[in-house]
Amino acid sequence: MSDNTTKPAASAMWGGRFAGGPAAIMQRINASIDFDKRLYAQDIRGSKAHCRMLVRQSILTQEDGDSILAGLDTVLAEIEAGDFPFSTALEDIHMNVESRLAALIGEAAGRLHTARSRNDQVATDFRLWVRDAVDGMDAALAGLVEALLNRAEEHAATVMPGFTHLQAAQPVTFGHHMMAYVEMISRDRSRLADARKRLNECPLGSAALAGTSFPIDRHATAADLGFAGPMRNSLDGVSDRDFALEFLSTSAICAVHLSRLAEELVIWTSAQFRFVRLSDGFTTGSSIMPQKRNPDAAELVRAKTGRVIGDLNALLIVMKGLPLAYSKDMQDDKEPVFEAADTMELAIAAMTGMISDMTVNAEVLRAAAGAGFTTATDIADWCVRAINMPFRRAHHVAGSLVKLAEDRGIGLEDLTLADMQGIEPGITAEAMAVLSVDSSVASRTSFGGTAPNRVREAVAAARKSLNGGGS
Amino acid sequence: MSDNTTKPAASAMWGGRFAGGPAAIMQRINASIDFDKRLYAQDIRGSKAHCRMLVRQSILTQEDGDSILAGLDTVLAEIEAGDFPFSTALEDIHMNVESRLAALIGEAAGRLHTARSRNDQVATDFRLWVRDAVDGMDAALAGLVEALLNRAEEHAATVMPGFTHLQAAQPVTFGHHMMAYVEMISRDRSRLADARKRLNECPLGSAALAGTSFPIDRHATAADLGFAGPMRNSLDGVSDRDFALEFLSTSAICAVHLSRLAEELVIWTSAQFRFVRLSDGFTTGSSIMPQKRNPDAAELVRAKTGRVIGDLNALLIVMKGLPLAYSKDMQDDKEPVFEAADTMELAIAAMTGMISDMTVNAEVLRAAAGAGFTTATDIADWCVRAINMPFRRAHHVAGSLVKLAEDRGIGLEDLTLADMQGIEPGITAEAMAVLSVDSSVASRTSFGGTAPNRVREAVAAARKSLNGGGS
Amino acid sequence: MSDNTTKPAASAMWGGRFAGGPAAIMQRINASIDFDKRLYAQDIRGSKAHCRMLVRQSILTQEDGDSILAGLDTVLAEIEAGDFPFSTALEDIHMNVESRLAALIGEAAGRLHTARSRNDQVATDFRLWVRDAVDGMDAALAGLVEALLNRAEEHAATVMPGFTHLQAAQPVTFGHHMMAYVEMISRDRSRLADARKRLNECPLGSAALAGTSFPIDRHATAADLGFAGPMRNSLDGVSDRDFALEFLSTSAICAVHLSRLAEELVIWTSAQFRFVRLSDGFTTGSSIMPQKRNPDAAELVRAKTGRVIGDLNALLIVMKGLPLAYSKDMQDDKEPVFEAADTMELAIAAMTGMISDMTVNAEVLRAAAGAGFTTATDIADWCVRAINMPFRRAHHVAGSLVKLAEDRGIGLEDLTLADMQGIEPGITAEAMAVLSVDSSVASRTSFGGTAPNRVREAVAAARKSLNGGGS
Amino acid sequence: MSDNTTKPAASAMWGGRFAGGPAAIMQRINASIDFDKRLYAQDIRGSKAHCRMLVRQSILTQEDGDSILAGLDTVLAEIEAGDFPFSTALEDIHMNVESRLAALIGEAAGRLHTARSRNDQVATDFRLWVRDAVDGMDAALAGLVEALLNRAEEHAATVMPGFTHLQAAQPVTFGHHMMAYVEMISRDRSRLADARKRLNECPLGSAALAGTSFPIDRHATAADLGFAGPMRNSLDGVSDRDFALEFLSTSAICAVHLSRLAEELVIWTSAQFRFVRLSDGFTTGSSIMPQKRNPDAAELVRAKTGRVIGDLNALLIVMKGLPLAYSKDMQDDKEPVFEAADTMELAIAAMTGMISDMTVNAEVLRAAAGAGFTTATDIADWCVRAINMPFRRAHHVAGSLVKLAEDRGIGLEDLTLADMQGIEPGITAEAMAVLSVDSSVASRTSFGGTAPNRVREAVAAARKSLNGGGS
Repeated sequence: MSDNTTKPAASAMWGGRFAGGPAAIMQRINASIDFDKRLYAQDIRGSKAHCRMLVRQSILTQEDGDSILAGLDTVLAEIEAGDFPFSTALEDIHMNVESRLAALIGEAAGRLHTARSRNDQVATDFRLWVRDAVDGMDAALAGLVEALLNRAEEHAATVMPGFTHLQAAQPVTFGHHMMAYVEMISRDRSRLADARKRLNECPLGSAALAGTSFPIDRHATAADLGFAGPMRNSLDGVSDRDFALEFLSTSAICAVHLSRLAEELVIWTSAQFRFVRLSDGFTTGSSIMPQKRNPDAAELVRAKTGRVIGDLNALLIVMKGLPLAYSKDMQDDKEPVFEAADTMELAIAAMTGMISDMTVNAEVLRAAAGAGFTTATDIADWCVRAINMPFRRAHHVAGSLVKLAEDRGIGLEDLTLADMQGIEPGITAEAMAVLSVDSSVASRTSFGGTAPNRVREAVAAARKSLNGGGS
Repeated sequence: MSDNTTKPAASAMWGGRFAGGPAAIMQRINASIDFDKRLYAQDIRGSKAHCRMLVRQSILTQEDGDSILAGLDTVLAEIEAGDFPFSTALEDIHMNVESRLAALIGEAAGRLHTARSRNDQVATDFRLWVRDAVDGMDAALAGLVEALLNRAEEHAATVMPGFTHLQAAQPVTFGHHMMAYVEMISRDRSRLADARKRLNECPLGSAALAGTSFPIDRHATAADLGFAGPMRNSLDGVSDRDFALEFLSTSAICAVHLSRLAEELVIWTSAQFRFVRLSDGFTTGSSIMPQKRNPDAAELVRAKTGRVIGDLNALLIVMKGLPLAYSKDMQDDKEPVFEAADTMELAIAAMTGMISDMTVNAEVLRAAAGAGFTTATDIADWCVRAINMPFRRAHHVAGSLVKLAEDRGIGLEDLTLADMQGIEPGITAEAMAVLSVDSSVASRTSFGGTAPNRVREAVAAARKSLNGGGS
Repeated sequence: MSDNTTKPAASAMWGGRFAGGPAAIMQRINASIDFDKRLYAQDIRGSKAHCRMLVRQSILTQEDGDSILAGLDTVLAEIEAGDFPFSTALEDIHMNVESRLAALIGEAAGRLHTARSRNDQVATDFRLWVRDAVDGMDAALAGLVEALLNRAEEHAATVMPGFTHLQAAQPVTFGHHMMAYVEMISRDRSRLADARKRLNECPLGSAALAGTSFPIDRHATAADLGFAGPMRNSLDGVSDRDFALEFLSTSAICAVHLSRLAEELVIWTSAQFRFVRLSDGFTTGSSIMPQKRNPDAAELVRAKTGRVIGDLNALLIVMKGLPLAYSKDMQDDKEPVFEAADTMELAIAAMTGMISDMTVNAEVLRAAAGAGFTTATDIADWCVRAINMPFRRAHHVAGSLVKLAEDRGIGLEDLTLADMQGIEPGITAEAMAVLSVDSSVASRTSFGGTAPNRVREAVAAARKSLNGGGS
Repeated sequence: MSDNTTKPAASAMWGGRFAGGPAAIMQRINASIDFDKRLYAQDIRGSKAHCRMLVRQSILTQEDGDSILAGLDTVLAEIEAGDFPFSTALEDIHMNVESRLAALIGEAAGRLHTARSRNDQVATDFRLWVRDAVDGMDAALAGLVEALLNRAEEHAATVMPGFTHLQAAQPVTFGHHMMAYVEMISRDRSRLADARKRLNECPLGSAALAGTSFPIDRHATAADLGFAGPMRNSLDGVSDRDFALEFLSTSAICAVHLSRLAEELVIWTSAQFRFVRLSDGFTTGSSIMPQKRNPDAAELVRAKTGRVIGDLNALLIVMKGLPLAYSKDMQDDKEPVFEAADTMELAIAAMTGMISDMTVNAEVLRAAAGAGFTTATDIADWCVRAINMPFRRAHHVAGSLVKLAEDRGIGLEDLTLADMQGIEPGITAEAMAVLSVDSSVASRTSFGGTAPNRVREAVAAARKSLNGGGS
């Protein structure tokens, strides 16, 4: 026969926190109320939509329906007032709400769960929550874009070194640099918009996994909750967490963008660079070294990338290899999403603040832009354009000019025409004009180029798009 | 002054593979030709578009242009014929192609690089490659959807247990189960379509990072290469790898879907389940245990999830905290993308084959569907619907009926009406009809439910959408 | 000159939670007290050790030292009594403690921070915490090993199918299967022990980053805090987080082990397998389907793997590319470690409980062990051993025997000697004995093999090692 | 009845690469020979040890044994000469070798596989490979330590700014900074040594999963292959991949260390920092901007962190939730490990080369060390030490002195005694001595501190440990 081995002695094994034995462990691992209470508003909203539909479909009486709706409003008010006694024994937000509803209105509460189950209920609640998170993140990113546009417009003609390999390569404008981030963040917003469309289908009515025999109207509940329509397969309805994964992957890519700007701020505020100065609000000082302005907020934004990528990983791994339909593993979907949403909210706010408040050291930028022979490409391009030299040879001529200037310890713009003609007789006085950083940036008028007018056009277009003028 | 510490003795340190010292190490870490040669077709296509534009803009003469185009066609033909001598000393695909072009056509080759740089060139090549990968993956997924639809249609009424927690919960149909994966894969395709739109902007003309002073026409090259238009910011143009990250995150989510179906195949083909039988083509046998059909392909599809998530991580981490614009770190963007694309191609093909070729054991499924009192919810729903019992109480009545049947060692459908009325007097003969698995699945006619007709409708709708009838 | 762009309008941008503007954002992103208060005991312990050393070295007077020690004890008591008013404005646990100390004892409190900084203080606190977490996890794993050993001993001779590819391959014993996990968990413990040795060096006295000019005795504080000695480099002392990474990677590998056993429990408790029955304490039932025992705890243990791997990733990514010495990014080291430690504590406890309390269905296991011709290898081995057939040919003979039995719908053990000799004349009556599952497992007496006596020896050896008899 | 749905039309679905249908797909997903051929030497070594043991145990005749050993040597020679025709149809390295052996020596080849299976064979081969990788990585890291020690010794007294938050905080020495990396890399080596001990147990003789009935001597094969002994459980023997996970996690942590140093090199070689100059061998220039020395190798080392962490993730995810014993998923263990091992070999070599060959700009470092009032802590410490001021007040005094100097635009060391006494009358002429960077670093003589003599002691101790003098 089968053995039976529930050993009385076993519970002696649980010291400390688990002195309560299996019950204490199970309650702690199984109950989700500690974190899923954040879904309370969505849970009640979903229940109200479900209730209204049940009444319309004559599955519930008007009277029961009214009683339930009023009761749910009371529960909502209690929670928002901080008066609600959340119970771990009731495990999750759904049972906490329903149990309180029963206490308030009696047996009618037991009719609310007709034609649904916790599986479609939690899937609906969580989708509503993530949809709110998507909207919140999008709005926050719009704020960041606005901050970047303001600085870009202001500095459309402020020259700075454009870097590759953290080595100065060619002059660009500070506004152009800011606009690169406008592009990145705008793509993040575009990804959020796409993710929102995909998530905006309603699982409610999938019931436990197979749908229901009640004559429910899923299109009605979907519409009531602002969804574009119901999900098309009940098994998928209760077991899909793509919307959470897509929110996390979109967040992770956005976090990478923020980390790049954060890294630049950390480097730019070093004593060696001094390109920008962050405001007191986003740095910490030192009473002993008052000149020290630690870029704490930028460092923390950079660090948050790790957390968000970690959250994405966590949920991808949780979902790997799960058979259909609902498995309890999926309860571990919420904490990574909550953490990522909170983290992104904070990181975006901090970045928006830093960008808005930072002081741009235009002179330092200008000096750095001109150092390092950064206009060498301009003279090469001139040779191609004006005297029809093949690019690869022009490149070589420019190299020789730089070498000459370097040997003399002067800048390219300090070479005389005679110096230049000594290396390439075809060079004329006209070529001298391309050697200043201002003429260099002004000349780069190709679409998307760094010429101040191009930057101003880009700012205007982005501003129009931001204000609803379409992308 | 600064010290100089290039120690002759240092190179003695490099044993074995690096006996060549710094040069050997640097060549191996720096050269990308071993993997980026996969970009050859895209590189030549991009160069041809660039060349045609330069001619139209009178930056190149018609004659030079013709010479370059013909030379590039020769290079392409040589590579495709396997006759091209790739050189590691030339580092990457761009220099390999350009160097060969110079050998073929002489100095005109040196004019091709006018108004571009390797930075925008590689960004363009890689985007073209990823766009092809997106298209290939989408086509492969369409094939998988078709395979799933075929099996779903065939088994629209084949009953099986619907599982939660890998415990039988309610009967569903095999077709309904297949259709859940159609939903998942269709979302994957939708994500690919969105990613494709976002990536379909052309970086060419961003030049090194600042744009160019040549009167290029970026809209023309973009159109020539099938892009919707040029990217709007040159710094972003050379430093953005979002398109690769989005391809990887979309692949990772898709891989998770495949892993879920693969896990089900592994479990379903165990001797204990025997729900399906995989074809010989996708299993390995054992000469000693001929009954053994190891589901190797399913296990490998499941495992591939790890690789693809690993690739996503790799590139997110590479990009974290990189200052603008191009950094050499970005050279490590290609291998994870190549690996993920190859892996997904293989996994999708294997899954499509397994689904197409598997044998579904309908009797085993039917027997399992009826075991475990899986229609208990149906009797509870009947009590709510027919005799207006609150759901929570009906749930309790159904539980008592199950307990009675279990104590007697019989199924729910074997209880007599008297048995039932002993527990709940309101139950009538009509209730008996809901206890069979066929009536259970037939009753779940809510939108997205498992009723065979619903499944057939879903198949028809998905087939229409697959054939271009819109989603 | 530099512009100044702190825009008054900027703060209008912060809606809702950040209505307070930069200050609110900065406080929330910068303050760590919400999570680092978990370090209070370690922080006070470290401060006391530092104080005692300062007195011994005559850097502090005895009187000040006594006052500080008494004050710290008061602070500790207040925190443990729940009476301590944690302040977010004071940012972190260190300033909360020191500020309260100053309120309690006055100016002497200001002398405690002599010859240290927050950088070495937090590094010390966190190491002490992780060391405790390592010890706690090791003790919990010892409990799990004991639970596994108990079940292994009990079922040293209980036959079950040994699986490869989830297909029955050869009979093994249940005890042998449990012992495989004893090996895995023992390696986890061994990794913890190694990690503990490496982390057990004390950073205190590294000061901000450069060491100090005070005549401190770092060996004394290290010894006082139970460390093997002081860390050898002050820059490394404040910027090293290897100990946290190693704790996380060890946890991740252990979580993978737990996930494998959890997956087996989920599969084994399915209606199709019924190998084991989990106790009520670790399953959830359904009032409507009383036979349903959802293996929630096992599913959650399986899911937790995702969280722990996510935590490992998070910190690896945070640390990537951080220049020396302390960067604020490192403040994000604690939450992943706290989360992983809590998660592992819970997962190990749940697994220990499930293993201790589960019922093993010996008959079901025996029946499954004998199905599927699992002793085919035994007859092949007999041919090699007894009649000197090459293994590859013996393998072929066994395959033919299986085929014959399969065609007749009988088991291998039901074949007659004549049947066998029809395929291979050399087979004798002696061969029949190897075909039962009991003789099969009994015969596998190679070291580490599944023979019951081997399993019992392994249990005894592991038990001895667990009780301190060495590994 | 069961349906049979192997559709002839299905294979039409496979375009292009999979035109061969299921067979082509299965061969590509299932065969491992493309990558596992790297195990050839280990595979043959393992087979020879197994063969010798079989002969000693009289399971094989001496004659057959001799024939097998000679045949295996021939196979090895063929592979090393590049003459071996690897066959994908034979799937893996084991079957390739055995098949060739059969061609060479005939039927005796079929006796080699007695008492083992592919499962324990591949586990043994891969362990041997990883053990070699561990040894190779350890030797490479020893080389890096030596390079760091050389630079540390040379620059034991070269002052530079010590950074926190990339802001100069206190002066340190360049040697001290190098020694921080010696500590990190030494921990990596310590982790490798521990991992090696744990992996150094032999799975051979686990057979398929249950052990064997042949009288094998597992201790003998273990010893022959240099293992400390046989693994203790046969199920664990074939299904454990901890050794690979531990190699990957150790590599990932080491890669993080390398990325930190690489990031510093990138920042230090910027025009703004100019702390060090990398040699030509590890940078790429630009023919047009000869002053540009792109730190490509450092950037690539930094990027490689992503790959290695990705590899670790890949295998953790593959192993998650795998039931015992062998599952085909495990075939995906090799590629991540091979990739990580190759990547680490290259990254360590590149870093060793950069460190050995770089030029340290001592004057630039000295100037930077003194900028930014980095000795403010020293004056505060003096107030505590010399005039018994509480640290928190001394901190405030130092802050006032810095403020005074900053207001006057001078350094701290340029303040007069009168200036100082105006702020704190207790300050004496003696205090002036602590304000130079040299006296600052010289004063930090605490154990592990940055004082040049401390650095020299640390170098000596590390060198002794490196040369086998114990840690």
